[in-house]
Amino acid sequence: MSDIFFSDEYFMKEALKEARKAFDADEIPVGAIIVSGNKIIAKAHNLAETLNDVTAHAEMQAITAAAEYLGAKYLNECTLYVTLEPCMMCAGALNWSQIGKIVYGAHDEKRGYNKYKPQLLHPKTEIVSGIMAQECASILKDFFARKRNK
Amino acid sequence: MSDIFFSDEYFMKEALKEARKAFDADEIPVGAIIVSGNKIIAKAHNLAETLNDVTAHAEMQAITAAAEYLGAKYLNECTLYVTLEPCMMCAGALNWSQIGKIVYGAHDEKRGYNKYKPQLLHPKTEIVSGIMAQECASILKDFFARKRNK
Repeated sequence: MSDIFFSDEYFMKEALKEARKAFDADEIPVGAIIVSGNKIIAKAHNLAETLNDVTAHAEMQAITAAAEYLGAKYLNECTLYVTLEPCMMCAGALNWSQIGKIVYGAHDEKRGYNKYKPQLLHPKTEIVSGIMAQECASILKDFFARKRNK
Repeated sequence: MSDIFFSDEYFMKEALKEARKAFDADEIPVGAIIVSGNKIIAKAHNLAETLNDVTAHAEMQAITAAAEYLGAKYLNECTLYVTLEPCMMCAGALNWSQIGKIVYGAHDEKRGYNKYKPQLLHPKTEIVSGIMAQECASILKDFFARKRNK
C-alpha cells in the first residue's frame, strides 16, 4: 500500500471519467472503479446497450474485473466508487462480494437500492454517499436532455 | 413456435440437468434455462467458484446468453426455469430484462428475493413456484451434506 493519501474525490473523479466514456458511447452515463490498497484495480462503465445485456452495469463489470485481478471472489479489502447509487441488482452483487466499502455520488430515488427492505447490501459494508453528487447527477441530466432533444 | 406442448416439468427437468452439472463441478447446484416459443435458447449453471465471480449465478449467465441469442436485451417473450428461487441480485437482473415468466423449483427462505419489499421483480412478470420443488431441493441438500462430510 502506498503512503500517499488519495481522497474520495480523487477516486470519484476517476469514476466520472468512466461515466464520460459511457456518455460518449450513447450509454446511460454511470462509471465505477474499484480500489484496493490505494490502487485502482478495476474500471468500468455502463455497457447495457452496446452489449445488449441488462446485466452490463458498471458495477457488475467492475466486480468481475476486480475478482479476476485479485484471483479471489470476495472483495472485503476493496472500495467501490460509483457515480450513481447502485440498483437492486448491483447491490445484490455487491452483497455477495462482501465488498468492504462503497462510495457513491448521486442518489437514485427511483431505482436505487436504498428503497428496499431489508437492506440489500452486506451488513459489514461501509457506505459513503453524496461524494461529488452534483457532478455525478449533471452528466446524467445532460444525457437525458440530449436524448429528449434528438 | 412448435405445436407440441411441453409442460413446466419438462423444462424444469432440463434446468435440473444443468444443476447436476454444477454439482459435478463442485459448485452449489443451481441450474437455469430460458425458453422462447417452446424452444430452449439458453442453458446455464452456477459457476461462481469456477470463475471466481460472485455474479456467475445460473440466472445471470442465462439472461446474458438469451439476450445474445435474441439480439435484444428485453426478454418479455421468454420464460426462465430455475431450480432455486432467485436471489436479490438475480431478481434485480430479471427485473431489468422484463422477462415474461419465471418458473422456479425450491424456495430459498434465507436468500430468496421474496423476502424483500417492495417486490424486486418486474410487475408484469408472471411467477410460478414449487415446480419439482422436492427434486430441486434434494440436489442442494445432497451437495451440502457431502460438503460437511468431506
